[in-house]
Amino acid sequence: MARAGRRPGQTETREQILAAARAQFAELGYDGATIRGIAAKASVNPALVHHFFGTKERVFLAALELPLDPAVIVPALVEGPRAQFGERVVRLFLTVWGDPQTRAPFLAMMRTITTNEQAARMLKQFLERQVLARVAAGLGVSPLRVAAAASHMVGLALFRYVVQVEPLASADVEEMVATVAPIIQAYVDETA
Amino acid sequence: MARAGRRPGQTETREQILAAARAQFAELGYDGATIRGIAAKASVNPALVHHFFGTKERVFLAALELPLDPAVIVPALVEGPRAQFGERVVRLFLTVWGDPQTRAPFLAMMRTITTNEQAARMLKQFLERQVLARVAAGLGVSPLRVAAAASHMVGLALFRYVVQVEPLASADVEEMVATVAPIIQAYVDETA
Repeated sequence: MARAGRRPGQTETREQILAAARAQFAELGYDGATIRGIAAKASVNPALVHHFFGTKERVFLAALELPLDPAVIVPALVEGPRAQFGERVVRLFLTVWGDPQTRAPFLAMMRTITTNEQAARMLKQFLERQVLARVAAGLGVSPLRVAAAASHMVGLALFRYVVQVEPLASADVEEMVATVAPIIQAYVDETA
Repeated sequence: MARAGRRPGQTETREQILAAARAQFAELGYDGATIRGIAAKASVNPALVHHFFGTKERVFLAALELPLDPAVIVPALVEGPRAQFGERVVRLFLTVWGDPQTRAPFLAMMRTITTNEQAARMLKQFLERQVLARVAAGLGVSPLRVAAAASHMVGLALFRYVVQVEPLASADVEEMVATVAPIIQAYVDETA
């Protein structure tokens, strides 16, 4: 829906750019795609892509309809007391996955990455560079440990919200925090 | 392929039973399906289902083509030194997922449960009753902690073998054991 005051045609241009972006990310991966290439594919000026989205990261988020903005999530996880990192991670995941509205795109993403190799490759590079590497650097923890911790949280979402394995599915938030937060914390504390 | 000495027609009967089993498990879940019901749906005598498969659990494994036999896996995990539980879990998972041959059906299962609600429900009950409850009882650990640990291993498989997130994807087995085994062990040791 075009906002009031926008000229008709802007929504179409935006959609055209997003379609081109999805094609470019699928073909070239997150690293290989460029704003210039996306603009060329959409037959628009690169400045217009910048105008609509700002950065390649934001084009990617919009193209995949991901409500996972590393500019918000990474600081939310890395800042704050280090001893409460595990708890912050678990609460953030349960908040995002617990709300059917914010869960939907993650669920769609989980379906896509298990069924579509190109989508898995796009997400892999984005996750490595834009999320995991930043958290690892922010905490001074090895990328391997951060990736392992992240894999736990994704598996937890799969079990609790998709397969709905009991007693995980009906445990309340505090019980989940008490059980899982110390485990995630151990990935940060034992920097072996 | 029928074994030597088998009458022709046995393979067809077996396939007919498995098709009926898939339909019954999908409709009624693991708990609701019975050998009697599967036999009725396949228009065969229940004794024939017993003859081919033995138990409902084995009908389920054959119907879903799962190479995950709890009668083998649960003892492999629960028996042996308790202090090495984490290591046993990680090595078993990496062995099963590391071999493309044994990985294939698990990968297919992961695709199915993210895209098919009925399949997710079937697997959920099977996993709860036949795998997680038995491991929890065998170790004297709460089912919540066992389910959380299992979710970690599934997420790890998703990241390492499906999305191939680095550096998880190319870490060698010993590095994976050193990183993840103490974390899984913590789920067993801290029986909060």
